[in-house]
Amino acid sequence: MVIHPSFPNSPYMQLIKTIKDMQAFGRRLKAERKSLGFVPTMGALHEGHLSLARRSIDENDFTVVSIFVNPAQFGPNEDFKKYPRDTEGDLQKLSPFKVDAVFLPDAAEMYTAGFSTSINIGNIGTILCGASRPGHFNGVATVVAKLFNAVTPDRAYFGQKDFQQTVVINKLARELNFATDIIVCPTVREPDGLAMSSRNTYLNSEERKAALILYKALKLGEELIISNGMVNAVLIKEELRMLIHTEPLAVIDYVEIVAADLGEVEKIKLPVAICLAVKLGKTRLIDNIIVDRFQRKS
Amino acid sequence: MVIHPSFPNSPYMQLIKTIKDMQAFGRRLKAERKSLGFVPTMGALHEGHLSLARRSIDENDFTVVSIFVNPAQFGPNEDFKKYPRDTEGDLQKLSPFKVDAVFLPDAAEMYTAGFSTSINIGNIGTILCGASRPGHFNGVATVVAKLFNAVTPDRAYFGQKDFQQTVVINKLARELNFATDIIVCPTVREPDGLAMSSRNTYLNSEERKAALILYKALKLGEELIISNGMVNAVLIKEELRMLIHTEPLAVIDYVEIVAADLGEVEKIKLPVAICLAVKLGKTRLIDNIIVDRFQRKS
Repeated sequence: MVIHPSFPNSPYMQLIKTIKDMQAFGRRLKAERKSLGFVPTMGALHEGHLSLARRSIDENDFTVVSIFVNPAQFGPNEDFKKYPRDTEGDLQKLSPFKVDAVFLPDAAEMYTAGFSTSINIGNIGTILCGASRPGHFNGVATVVAKLFNAVTPDRAYFGQKDFQQTVVINKLARELNFATDIIVCPTVREPDGLAMSSRNTYLNSEERKAALILYKALKLGEELIISNGMVNAVLIKEELRMLIHTEPLAVIDYVEIVAADLGEVEKIKLPVAICLAVKLGKTRLIDNIIVDRFQRKS
Repeated sequence: MVIHPSFPNSPYMQLIKTIKDMQAFGRRLKAERKSLGFVPTMGALHEGHLSLARRSIDENDFTVVSIFVNPAQFGPNEDFKKYPRDTEGDLQKLSPFKVDAVFLPDAAEMYTAGFSTSINIGNIGTILCGASRPGHFNGVATVVAKLFNAVTPDRAYFGQKDFQQTVVINKLARELNFATDIIVCPTVREPDGLAMSSRNTYLNSEERKAALILYKALKLGEELIISNGMVNAVLIKEELRMLIHTEPLAVIDYVEIVAADLGEVEKIKLPVAICLAVKLGKTRLIDNIIVDRFQRKS
């Protein structure tokens, strides 16, 4: 455990590099009957991540943020190598908050030589993003299980922006009996509606403008359901596709409407989630909105 | 949590049926800085299991024994239905010991509707017993992960009789960062050398006599290596096969010599494990011996 030299005045933020030290931290808290909140991230922190940290700090005695770009959740032709990394910047962004520890394992600490264990979450990992990213959610489930066992949190915080991921992790936590509550927090958006994502930095200025089509499509879907009372999911998805096609830079990966458990929806029965994946140039963005008569989360 | 009515005088042995209660038990111990040992079993307890409980009691402040016949580790044509079950008898056998709690979840508690998560341990789960029992070790890994998350033990005790299982579980614990030490305890044998196993009850008296061939073969292998200095694993295995073939009731599943990590061995370099699976009638028995110049475990 190290107090970061750049933050000598922060009484809080320890940097923890090993699983063993991380577990010792969790064990001390349990002996002191303190609650622990956990925000797992891949770094390149933005306001979305910071909102999770704030929520954890509100709800727990202690908070740990992890930064680990997990190779196991990237496909061979995906952006693992170029994924934005800025640990110093991330620590600067966290330093104003009462984050008690930042867990910063390296790849060798997380994936020892000969590593061969993987967690298969079943069908919900092969639809939507899983269809174009085979193995992605097994990689997510495996690293989250490892992180949960390292940090042993009472609560873990995830952004709704990765809606399928939240369903996968909730199922993982429940089915493997992790004593960790999964807390899903609202998507944080740019002023114009674009969901915050570390991958937004990949966009050039034209793509950045075009990316707004995701949010526009979600809002259209919400309107068609709530205001227009449309109930045929196929027709609603077709409307959304048509809107997205008006943006020449946008290439649709999928437009889906699913139930809370990711089950297929033919006739709308609220709540439902509208989920999109759209490519802009080489950048694949996802977004979603939960449509509920009483409570609109976006 | 229930004090079992048959053991009103045992101040110790609580019966715990739910994961939530089990986790609360573990959490209390952590708050009290007490260590917890865990002996996972499928019931039908014999002296082998009891030796694990004794060791746990010696080494920890508290001990939990679980009894759960895990459907996920049985193949469709295996003996899940007829596997011996005798919970009352098991509790009687445990009652003389300072076992603090017996965890007795039912199948619905462990495998909720729609359950789809499984842990794949990789190649070491597909060789030896995994070759004739596809999916078995994934089922073992999944239930052990669930049990570890329910019980949250500091140490877990397994018998060397299931040698491949101990390697699988050790890898699982290490690779998923479980904060649980895996303790492997010596195989307990009947006076004539037969390894204790809940499945021995399946044997009729002729098969019971014939079953001794497993131990004889292991001792022959040990002798060929230690006393005769044989180093060619293929030839040693051939000798063992020939001996086992002298027993008309015995049908070999496999005879293997492997390293501590289950890696293939061509030229003997100690320590090695000699591992056998042999069918006697409908009953498949396994046994093994670790051959080490300095320390002979059997």
